[in-house]
Amino acid sequence: MKTDVEISQEAKMTSITAIAKKLGIKDEELEQYGNYKAKVNFDPSAPRTDGKLILVTSINPTAAGEGKTTVTIGLGDAFTELHKKVALALREPSLGPVMGMKGGATGGGYAQVIPMEDINLHFTGDFHALTEAHNTLSALIDNHIQHGNELNLDPRQVTWKRVMDVNDRELRQIVVGLGGRTSGVPRQDGFDITVASELMAILCLSNSLSDLKNRISRILIGYTYDRKPVYVSDLHVQGALTLLLKDAIKPNLVQTLEHTPAFIHGGPFANIAHGCNSILATKAALAYGDYAITEAGFGSDLGAEKFMDIVAPRLKKTPDCVVVVATVRALKLNGGADKHDLNTENLSALKKGIVNLKRHVEGMQQYGKPVIVAVNKFATDSDDELTYLLNYVRNDLKVTGEIINSWAQGGKAGVELARKVITACDQPADFHELYNHEESTVLEKMQAIVTRIYGGDNIELSHKAQLALKRIEKMGYGHLPVCMAKTQYSFTDNAKQLGAPDNFTIHVSDLQLKLGAGFIVALTGKILTMPGLPSHPAALDMDIDENGRITGLF
Amino acid sequence: MKTDVEISQEAKMTSITAIAKKLGIKDEELEQYGNYKAKVNFDPSAPRTDGKLILVTSINPTAAGEGKTTVTIGLGDAFTELHKKVALALREPSLGPVMGMKGGATGGGYAQVIPMEDINLHFTGDFHALTEAHNTLSALIDNHIQHGNELNLDPRQVTWKRVMDVNDRELRQIVVGLGGRTSGVPRQDGFDITVASELMAILCLSNSLSDLKNRISRILIGYTYDRKPVYVSDLHVQGALTLLLKDAIKPNLVQTLEHTPAFIHGGPFANIAHGCNSILATKAALAYGDYAITEAGFGSDLGAEKFMDIVAPRLKKTPDCVVVVATVRALKLNGGADKHDLNTENLSALKKGIVNLKRHVEGMQQYGKPVIVAVNKFATDSDDELTYLLNYVRNDLKVTGEIINSWAQGGKAGVELARKVITACDQPADFHELYNHEESTVLEKMQAIVTRIYGGDNIELSHKAQLALKRIEKMGYGHLPVCMAKTQYSFTDNAKQLGAPDNFTIHVSDLQLKLGAGFIVALTGKILTMPGLPSHPAALDMDIDENGRITGLF
Repeated sequence: MKTDVEISQEAKMTSITAIAKKLGIKDEELEQYGNYKAKVNFDPSAPRTDGKLILVTSINPTAAGEGKTTVTIGLGDAFTELHKKVALALREPSLGPVMGMKGGATGGGYAQVIPMEDINLHFTGDFHALTEAHNTLSALIDNHIQHGNELNLDPRQVTWKRVMDVNDRELRQIVVGLGGRTSGVPRQDGFDITVASELMAILCLSNSLSDLKNRISRILIGYTYDRKPVYVSDLHVQGALTLLLKDAIKPNLVQTLEHTPAFIHGGPFANIAHGCNSILATKAALAYGDYAITEAGFGSDLGAEKFMDIVAPRLKKTPDCVVVVATVRALKLNGGADKHDLNTENLSALKKGIVNLKRHVEGMQQYGKPVIVAVNKFATDSDDELTYLLNYVRNDLKVTGEIINSWAQGGKAGVELARKVITACDQPADFHELYNHEESTVLEKMQAIVTRIYGGDNIELSHKAQLALKRIEKMGYGHLPVCMAKTQYSFTDNAKQLGAPDNFTIHVSDLQLKLGAGFIVALTGKILTMPGLPSHPAALDMDIDENGRITGLF
Repeated sequence: MKTDVEISQEAKMTSITAIAKKLGIKDEELEQYGNYKAKVNFDPSAPRTDGKLILVTSINPTAAGEGKTTVTIGLGDAFTELHKKVALALREPSLGPVMGMKGGATGGGYAQVIPMEDINLHFTGDFHALTEAHNTLSALIDNHIQHGNELNLDPRQVTWKRVMDVNDRELRQIVVGLGGRTSGVPRQDGFDITVASELMAILCLSNSLSDLKNRISRILIGYTYDRKPVYVSDLHVQGALTLLLKDAIKPNLVQTLEHTPAFIHGGPFANIAHGCNSILATKAALAYGDYAITEAGFGSDLGAEKFMDIVAPRLKKTPDCVVVVATVRALKLNGGADKHDLNTENLSALKKGIVNLKRHVEGMQQYGKPVIVAVNKFATDSDDELTYLLNYVRNDLKVTGEIINSWAQGGKAGVELARKVITACDQPADFHELYNHEESTVLEKMQAIVTRIYGGDNIELSHKAQLALKRIEKMGYGHLPVCMAKTQYSFTDNAKQLGAPDNFTIHVSDLQLKLGAGFIVALTGKILTMPGLPSHPAALDMDIDENGRITGLF
């Protein structure tokens, strides 16, 4: 069987200029990065007719792999198969995890975006630009303290950490500024992974270059000795930081194996950030395509909830249809099956684990838009398992369910699903807010997410989180939406609680004010904002020969 | 008067495909990055006739600015003016200093490489790729220690630091790995600026992708508890790191304001590293052009010495002519003039400071190739000053000297200089090694550089350096060339000693083994491998408006 990288390398790519032309992108709007990647100088203010928006989400991810990106890409290719004008809007992969765990973020099998090596490595440099801008701000903050500290910034209360697009646990907690008078001021600090940077969220939520600059101005970087907030605008460096992101803000265009256009832009993780690709890329997909298919990170409890509650109000558009991806294997794992024994038929585990899918579907249904279940077929699924799953979806959940097999067969194996999605998009449906965005308190918002999406009972704030909440409300920011940072593996804040647990409490350890992004991050459980590498990192098996041929990259 | 960025923005650029065509670069060898930048898939193994090589260097840099890059670019445009097939080979600017001090690394006035904003910012992402690869190795090292430490690596003896392309003094000396059992092993560490990374030197000295991988394998990352060396090859990650540099190794092509092709690739600083652009870019310039003009960093005591003693043997080609850039202003500063009073005629300061030029010229003459002095004219230079300087060069130093005024007038104001350079290139001349590369000891090599290039008497090794030397010789690496890390402002290791001091000693504080690069770095004086930002960083004055128009970037 061919590996993903082999399939990708054998693909006949169409030139990116031809892909752009197909979408109606003008020559002067296109900046090529080699022959198969481009940035698009998309003007979101130009009046256009918006296409239909399809949001793809999934059950909780497991070690079995759900293939949400694979389904999204396969669905896009199925639209192409049906001669629909479609564009994908996906997130860019982060390099840190690429070196850690095997498994790409560019789909798999015969449903991939290409050139996959480039997309998975440096791509067009957006994440590096974010890393550079983020750490430039860090240096400017410490430099201000070093040179007289006119703003009276308290080194113990600097909230702006540093970032790197590397899985490096060694940098989670560090002490900087050692070495004496000329080498800075000693203080505690730490690195997050770049995707967790507030600048990443800002880039993804900005509607224009000036929106980007305004948001950067508003970033809270810390507090003075007398506990007054200090913003980027106080340092006067929003211009320089925006300058560093002038190209990163432009959506990137690539293609799938079947030449469906794909905008790949921005990549916050959904467990530690808001988990959706950029608003500009989604707008570009909506403007150039009759159908825009986007994907939100991890399960619907994370990325999709944030898409609905944080992104949609800024995009000024809600999905016309929500697709929840499920697999027999992952549901069996959720039902207690051994992860080394997923190739064997196990109906009882499937029946037990299916509650996970139920809760995801019902969570999404609360937003009022049509929900469809896409069953991503694996070769090892038995007919009985697939039949049980589809029947459960159709008869018990009473929603549309279809199998998609694009991993093995590309777009043509997703045509039935695509037809159902097209029908759903034409269904009139009102969007329902999960909570009142104007009037709910921070606690009420968290409570709504925990009870209505996670299926839990309560939230419990640590002493630190309580103090943070008090300060946030005193500062007048209680109206902002909440971005939950939570493990992706469970509805609860404990990664080991699979299925659909009941009667649980979500533990909030801290609340962080992200004024540039325009939300409050609630850190729950033991969530880490800097991952580590495993004992056998994927990097050990990668290679490139003298002709540039790559092996071991998925 | 227009600023550099204004002149650059008003320039009518030729498409990079047309520039490439002019040089005879084939379509399939070109990877566009937008319309005005490209990477060239240059095959250095293809047999071609090499052009003539011209090396541009200068006197010691001062606060007055010498304009070495401006002269290099102006000289290239003068060759174009004379209808010669010429290509430049320059270094890429580092982003860290761009945010700190005003002053670009892309020339100035009417002698610039463009698009200057892009080149000065992220360009084609090479430095970011190096940063990523460097820090990925750091993470893999600490991850190895965390997961059982099979290699028995001593955390106190890890010599591989981390890097960032930001001027951030706060990161010079840090403690990492705090936070308990799951967050790494506590140890001392620090960040260098990316241009000081051994990977930067390796990229610039590699002749092919497999040479790059072999060099990476050989990198020394630290020692075991029983003091045995540990290499990248012991970690088995040379493939992954090379993969991360697969595009960075390809030379970048841009143009000057007058459409002279310029390869801009690699950018080690000459004070803390070897200070020359990549061998592949220089080879590309030599292969595609009849004349290749390259530039080495800072004064001839740093970049040019390293070009002759480290680069040339690996390039397998020595310069056909050396151009030493001097200015009236900088020589006056070297002669004791006040830096705020350089616009006034001051012949006595000029006469006193001219010894600096003398030593640079005589240093370069020892290599046996023709040396020419280029006087970079400033509007404030008086006729008497210029006449004195030219007469001194011609009559006392007995070398060719010409004025170049390309900053104000572009290539046509460098034509006389270009003619002299062309004549010099046709002069038969043998290259003389500064020291015997096969047989000299480490001390003898340093002694040769100090006495014959710097004009000093002695070297003195700290206790730490003596121990390091003993270990290097015991390990069998005493045959490697030495890369001096020294202040650029003086022939001595004290930045304040201008002119041409006599009877001084160079103090070596440490010797570092860079086995991938293939040299030993000698740290002298108080040289820092991570710069800081000034009290008013240039970043504070930069801006970009809603249409993407940039201000304050030079």
